Amino acid sequence: MAYFKGVEKVVYEGHKSTNPFAFKYYNPKEAVGGKTMEEFLRFSVAYWHTFTANGSDPFGAGTMVRPWDSLSELDKAKARVEAAFELFEKLNVPFFAFHDVDVAPEGASLKESNKNLDVIVAMIKDYMKTSNVKLLWNTVNNFTHPRFVHGAATTNSADVYAYAAAKVKKGLEVGKELGAENYVFWGGREGYETLLNTNMKLELDNLARFYHMAIDYAKEIGFDAQFLIEPKPKEPTTHQYDFDVATGIGFLYQYGLQNHFKFNIEANHATLAGHTFEHELRVAREAGMLGSVDANQGDPLLGWDTDEFPTDLYSTTLAMYEIVKNGGLGRGGLNFDAKVRRGSFELNDLIHAHIAGMDAFAVGLKVANKLIEDKVLDGIIEERYSSFNTGIGEKIVSGTTSLKELEEHALSLGEITNQSGRLEKIKATINQYLLHVNEL
Amino acid sequence: MAYFKGVEKVVYEGHKSTNPFAFKYYNPKEAVGGKTMEEFLRFSVAYWHTFTANGSDPFGAGTMVRPWDSLSELDKAKARVEAAFELFEKLNVPFFAFHDVDVAPEGASLKESNKNLDVIVAMIKDYMKTSNVKLLWNTVNNFTHPRFVHGAATTNSADVYAYAAAKVKKGLEVGKELGAENYVFWGGREGYETLLNTNMKLELDNLARFYHMAIDYAKEIGFDAQFLIEPKPKEPTTHQYDFDVATGIGFLYQYGLQNHFKFNIEANHATLAGHTFEHELRVAREAGMLGSVDANQGDPLLGWDTDEFPTDLYSTTLAMYEIVKNGGLGRGGLNFDAKVRRGSFELNDLIHAHIAGMDAFAVGLKVANKLIEDKVLDGIIEERYSSFNTGIGEKIVSGTTSLKELEEHALSLGEITNQSGRLEKIKATINQYLLHVNEL
Amino acid sequence: MAYFKGVEKVVYEGHKSTNPFAFKYYNPKEAVGGKTMEEFLRFSVAYWHTFTANGSDPFGAGTMVRPWDSLSELDKAKARVEAAFELFEKLNVPFFAFHDVDVAPEGASLKESNKNLDVIVAMIKDYMKTSNVKLLWNTVNNFTHPRFVHGAATTNSADVYAYAAAKVKKGLEVGKELGAENYVFWGGREGYETLLNTNMKLELDNLARFYHMAIDYAKEIGFDAQFLIEPKPKEPTTHQYDFDVATGIGFLYQYGLQNHFKFNIEANHATLAGHTFEHELRVAREAGMLGSVDANQGDPLLGWDTDEFPTDLYSTTLAMYEIVKNGGLGRGGLNFDAKVRRGSFELNDLIHAHIAGMDAFAVGLKVANKLIEDKVLDGIIEERYSSFNTGIGEKIVSGTTSLKELEEHALSLGEITNQSGRLEKIKATINQYLLHVNEL
Amino acid sequence: MAYFKGVEKVVYEGHKSTNPFAFKYYNPKEAVGGKTMEEFLRFSVAYWHTFTANGSDPFGAGTMVRPWDSLSELDKAKARVEAAFELFEKLNVPFFAFHDVDVAPEGASLKESNKNLDVIVAMIKDYMKTSNVKLLWNTVNNFTHPRFVHGAATTNSADVYAYAAAKVKKGLEVGKELGAENYVFWGGREGYETLLNTNMKLELDNLARFYHMAIDYAKEIGFDAQFLIEPKPKEPTTHQYDFDVATGIGFLYQYGLQNHFKFNIEANHATLAGHTFEHELRVAREAGMLGSVDANQGDPLLGWDTDEFPTDLYSTTLAMYEIVKNGGLGRGGLNFDAKVRRGSFELNDLIHAHIAGMDAFAVGLKVANKLIEDKVLDGIIEERYSSFNTGIGEKIVSGTTSLKELEEHALSLGEITNQSGRLEKIKATINQYLLHVNEL
Repeated sequence: MAYFKGVEKVVYEGHKSTNPFAFKYYNPKEAVGGKTMEEFLRFSVAYWHTFTANGSDPFGAGTMVRPWDSLSELDKAKARVEAAFELFEKLNVPFFAFHDVDVAPEGASLKESNKNLDVIVAMIKDYMKTSNVKLLWNTVNNFTHPRFVHGAATTNSADVYAYAAAKVKKGLEVGKELGAENYVFWGGREGYETLLNTNMKLELDNLARFYHMAIDYAKEIGFDAQFLIEPKPKEPTTHQYDFDVATGIGFLYQYGLQNHFKFNIEANHATLAGHTFEHELRVAREAGMLGSVDANQGDPLLGWDTDEFPTDLYSTTLAMYEIVKNGGLGRGGLNFDAKVRRGSFELNDLIHAHIAGMDAFAVGLKVANKLIEDKVLDGIIEERYSSFNTGIGEKIVSGTTSLKELEEHALSLGEITNQSGRLEKIKATINQYLLHVNEL
Repeated sequence: MAYFKGVEKVVYEGHKSTNPFAFKYYNPKEAVGGKTMEEFLRFSVAYWHTFTANGSDPFGAGTMVRPWDSLSELDKAKARVEAAFELFEKLNVPFFAFHDVDVAPEGASLKESNKNLDVIVAMIKDYMKTSNVKLLWNTVNNFTHPRFVHGAATTNSADVYAYAAAKVKKGLEVGKELGAENYVFWGGREGYETLLNTNMKLELDNLARFYHMAIDYAKEIGFDAQFLIEPKPKEPTTHQYDFDVATGIGFLYQYGLQNHFKFNIEANHATLAGHTFEHELRVAREAGMLGSVDANQGDPLLGWDTDEFPTDLYSTTLAMYEIVKNGGLGRGGLNFDAKVRRGSFELNDLIHAHIAGMDAFAVGLKVANKLIEDKVLDGIIEERYSSFNTGIGEKIVSGTTSLKELEEHALSLGEITNQSGRLEKIKATINQYLLHVNEL
Repeated sequence: MAYFKGVEKVVYEGHKSTNPFAFKYYNPKEAVGGKTMEEFLRFSVAYWHTFTANGSDPFGAGTMVRPWDSLSELDKAKARVEAAFELFEKLNVPFFAFHDVDVAPEGASLKESNKNLDVIVAMIKDYMKTSNVKLLWNTVNNFTHPRFVHGAATTNSADVYAYAAAKVKKGLEVGKELGAENYVFWGGREGYETLLNTNMKLELDNLARFYHMAIDYAKEIGFDAQFLIEPKPKEPTTHQYDFDVATGIGFLYQYGLQNHFKFNIEANHATLAGHTFEHELRVAREAGMLGSVDANQGDPLLGWDTDEFPTDLYSTTLAMYEIVKNGGLGRGGLNFDAKVRRGSFELNDLIHAHIAGMDAFAVGLKVANKLIEDKVLDGIIEERYSSFNTGIGEKIVSGTTSLKELEEHALSLGEITNQSGRLEKIKATINQYLLHVNEL
Repeated sequence: MAYFKGVEKVVYEGHKSTNPFAFKYYNPKEAVGGKTMEEFLRFSVAYWHTFTANGSDPFGAGTMVRPWDSLSELDKAKARVEAAFELFEKLNVPFFAFHDVDVAPEGASLKESNKNLDVIVAMIKDYMKTSNVKLLWNTVNNFTHPRFVHGAATTNSADVYAYAAAKVKKGLEVGKELGAENYVFWGGREGYETLLNTNMKLELDNLARFYHMAIDYAKEIGFDAQFLIEPKPKEPTTHQYDFDVATGIGFLYQYGLQNHFKFNIEANHATLAGHTFEHELRVAREAGMLGSVDANQGDPLLGWDTDEFPTDLYSTTLAMYEIVKNGGLGRGGLNFDAKVRRGSFELNDLIHAHIAGMDAFAVGLKVANKLIEDKVLDGIIEERYSSFNTGIGEKIVSGTTSLKELEEHALSLGEITNQSGRLEKIKATINQYLLHVNEL
């Protein structure tokens, strides 16, 4: 059966198209920056927001009535798989991502949950055979169930820790079974509500041990996915341990894990941490740890994770700038960890929203690539930092000078002249590049 | 001459005193937690806020007219030293802290600036001979002068970098000369305004090189102060590199600097980073990097550094909790990096403000110590995490288990029962402890 | 049956009590400020947080398993009434408050919902006969059901508007039936998600019409409760129309409603709006519109409504300061619109939390009253503004001067001398008062 | 003499121009929406940011060395006038705006300050004779001088109040002399630092009296400018009385001032208050009080007023949407209350920044106008709210129904069907309109 009625395969019709169910910018095979668009824009649909969520919020019940709502749990799960592959196909997205509980219902016991999962995973695997869609990443949900109220890998209960570990073990097996490119750790309950009853040191030590065991087990079963940590500063816990990329880097180094993980960076989590999206991408990129992206956007005037579909072209441009500079995302992708608004409760809103996001990133890619080709920012930066190419600057960069020599140099200087950073001119330039995207 | 007129030495009079110029709680020789109060509360006056600042803000001129305002630059600097030691004495604080430009006027050249500094440093040294006050830390101001507009150790100009290095060299020499216990690096301009014109990688590499050279030079001259990094997330730059303690830890590890630095933690900087004060202290403490404290408080409803004198007893209690747990601050101290409000422009407001802060920390110390003695929080934590003392929990902590074994354990479990975290009860308990401080 | 086992009636045992199930400060009949404590502290239990909520959050399922969970909807509602009156009695609270859907299950139709409500309201009325507890206020929930997705009194659908109106009509009848002292309007969905599809003018006009109809109907049925608007700036909608008290005042005046409403002020909503709790109380008080209080507290580092039980003694002191200055709350009360943390999922946590809140307000009352009795702040204010008592100041206040006359006065002045605002000293004083509460 | 060297008159060259000193979008005589661009975009240069400010911030000294810096105070003031008119001419802006102290130095007394002002005002008047530039608005700075430390019209000192009044009297005279279209009141110190020492009621009453006197005096001297209040929520004071537009409306109504004032709305102030720019414009527009605009932008991740030049095309589009809907700004304008970054310290950065801002608003105007012409949003809104055009909806809007009738209607309804709000589709549409601006 078809769930998304009245919508055929969404195709590229060019920027003048007025067809709401067509791409205006996303043209998969179009050459950009030495690759095709689809090579840079490895789009992924987030199973949870798109097929499992119902539009509830802390003050309201679900608004989204789906065709499968009346089915039994397992049949519902199966219907969602059907709907999912229909959407993947219609949108021409190459990837999807899920948590265990998004795809299969939890049973009365861990054993039963795993059994449910096996049924659905087999079905998904079957669908994947005749589809081009791949699994960008999977993970397990170790945060929704009440047992995780005090944490999973950072719980105060050894039993809960074991339960969480068992779920990750299964998750790794599922990832291997479906050929996942990455495996993500988002610590929804890995943090604290109050320091007053928290042994932070033990919790962080345990978290590191948890990761080491996961690395070992993946190796043991021959699952070679890239492991990813997904930072978020707060929500649901008051303080999440994986606050931001920089915090994550510190953690990985402190516990000798730095060679085993990259980051899955979410735009809205960056905002909540007080950073721009591009900041988080840059920090990860320069550390060689830019793994994958949760493509969404937040509302800077709201203090919680709104997970909006990304439409801000400044944000997509600066994100794609980092990604193109990174040579693409490697095994990672652009996963739409985004939900249609509670008021956008019709099935077709899912199509509109994904088109909005995919076109926004396609525009971002084209503009970013043109900025790079024209050396707009690189030219500015090369000139700005040129004093480090010769003389005392070269010595600084090569680590062959000292405070003494630098003092001698400083004493020999007259008035130092700086140059304007020209931010206003740069911003006007970026606007002009953006507004010319239709000519690229 | 006396600057603080009508105020004699401020002494402890007990909690019932109504003398505004007496301590109600700070009693230096009182025994608390196996030390004296003054051993835990190594108070320090911040020279810049107290003797150099004038109450200006971005929308207003200075409101604080001081007796020395009409003097020439060097005479003004000398008068401030006199006033400073008068205040130190009257308040009975054991430490002070300064930036180079707080104590001595900048000259027309680096050479002249250094000469001015030598004059004042000699005078300070002289005063210190007949005083009990010591230098908690010194540093150099590499952020106010226009030459640092694009950064100091993270500038785009090799000349500016050299200039900054020369100032630090002098700062280290001054620290040695005055027997400073610590040397602080706060990166006022070490950050970026926009990524669009910034080479972040080069800037961070250069910052690490800068620190390595400082370490080398301190060693060379035999200056054995503890080096401290002071995190701040934003302001003045849009993004400061030393965002918070966790970011700092990551940076230190990435650049092999982790054994050379601890942190100087400021309450208001924590707030700006989205953390509580005690969070930052805890993170540093558990990493073995709790060095010193900038004791102030911010206004959580304002988005900038208000640097208020600390009076919130919850904050001082939870801060002292971390510090007592740390066995004190070692060579560090509690530096009042705090300014009287622009509306508190009279000289005696400086006395009131320091008394308010010192008493607030004395209360915090007493309450925290009693909480520790009574094992109020430790008892809760020991019980909460007791499942890690035996069985599978012990295996987890000792690193001798695996996902497989944990899965087996999990499969054997029935419903897992968690216990309430009891936050509301804990908070009521803390209130009761606080309100009984007069009986401690 | 008894739901709260092992806990007898909670009574006052004094500040030294170590019984966790006793009041240390709340002593109902104690005289304070010319009234008894219970006259100032008209505590109310919020039915929704305490009996209906289950501890779910946007990332997690409910953690609170209650004895009534397995019952059918209507039986569950009845069991909650039993439990509620047991708690009211044990806590000795004089009031409670509810939304329609908190107490009775929604039916398949409006008619059925009303019928359910009638059943439970009759039961509540019955319980009230043999209890001292009264209804502080009731209201209807016009935000949770999906039909209110685009608003209730500010919806774009006339049918939804009518439905919301019908619910309010019933709410007013229920209020009259149970003798409610107040009737509250909180506009959970009265706001907008985006201006792009919103007719704000029409929505606000309709909201005003809605209020006018409610006034008319209350009059018609002889329900003389005080009407209250409860401001909140955001959440669940991006922008709530009743942003804060000042916004509410403007709305009331623009639509000629200013004589019919007062405000129900919630601490956490104040925080979200960028205000302190005491600011909102003051604005309402000085406009003669301080009606009632939702007593809770937020976390200033989190951007959503955390609705914590109030334990911050600074906040309760400054709140009670406004309330005592207001001569009490009249028909209003202190409603604990507060929820135990998701991790505090045991029934007894509800007891602990209410004790924590009640004691915190009792402390606040005692300290505030002493500050008022001693004229601590009034004395400062009288002196600070004394220049408006005579001469040109008197003319200003009496409205009998002009810019010309003021210019003449200004031209005649020499240097104007201001006086310090002494904030640091005032804060130290408040700390000292707080820490002496045990002696009051 | 020429201050802005190497730059001739900036003219429109079209969107393909690569000349950094040309407009790409701002084409004054171009017809848009039934007017010319320049009729909608009444641009104004802010004297203070552009000619008086020096790039200092709370942590740094000024970076902007201007040709007039070495002159005496009065000569400096004169040179600035020359430079200002040179810039106005080169940029082809029709308006400017100033505070008294921006244009003329304060003297040792009020009398001397007024005398200085007379000299410069005469010079400005002279320049205006041979120029097309007009005064959009003037005001007086009642916040920078230390005498205003505790407020101006809301001070605790009658003398300070009188001084502030005298300055406003002079300001009104200057406005009349120069034919100002508006007169602005921004209450830089009109607010409070702490309620603990504040008589808020007296302060607000005095503020209203101040406004009434200003109205009277303007009438007396025949100065018919539109009076404008400029809301800001915080900074410099902790709480500013004119928090936002809605607060301002409430104040005006409470004090019977609603017919005498409109609002001067600043984008960055909206952000600080937790609103979007367009929200504030909408609230004012629908109250018939949209007066003028301070065109800038803030950084949502920073908590203070950054006053950046506006370049965000979403913001300029949505702002211009409100302005076009308002039929333009009447006597108001778009004043660039914006400062070049501290790092943009060269004179030509002022040119770049204004071009960036003017082009951004020109783009915004074109896109907004096209959205209106095509009824993109109006069409959505008409359809969404159509249920209020007939039947029960019509009765609601005409105020001819009651809760009873609405209940009857509601009881007769089956399941109510809402329609999707389609936010994602709308956002994609706006992106497409924006990216086609070059074809408009």
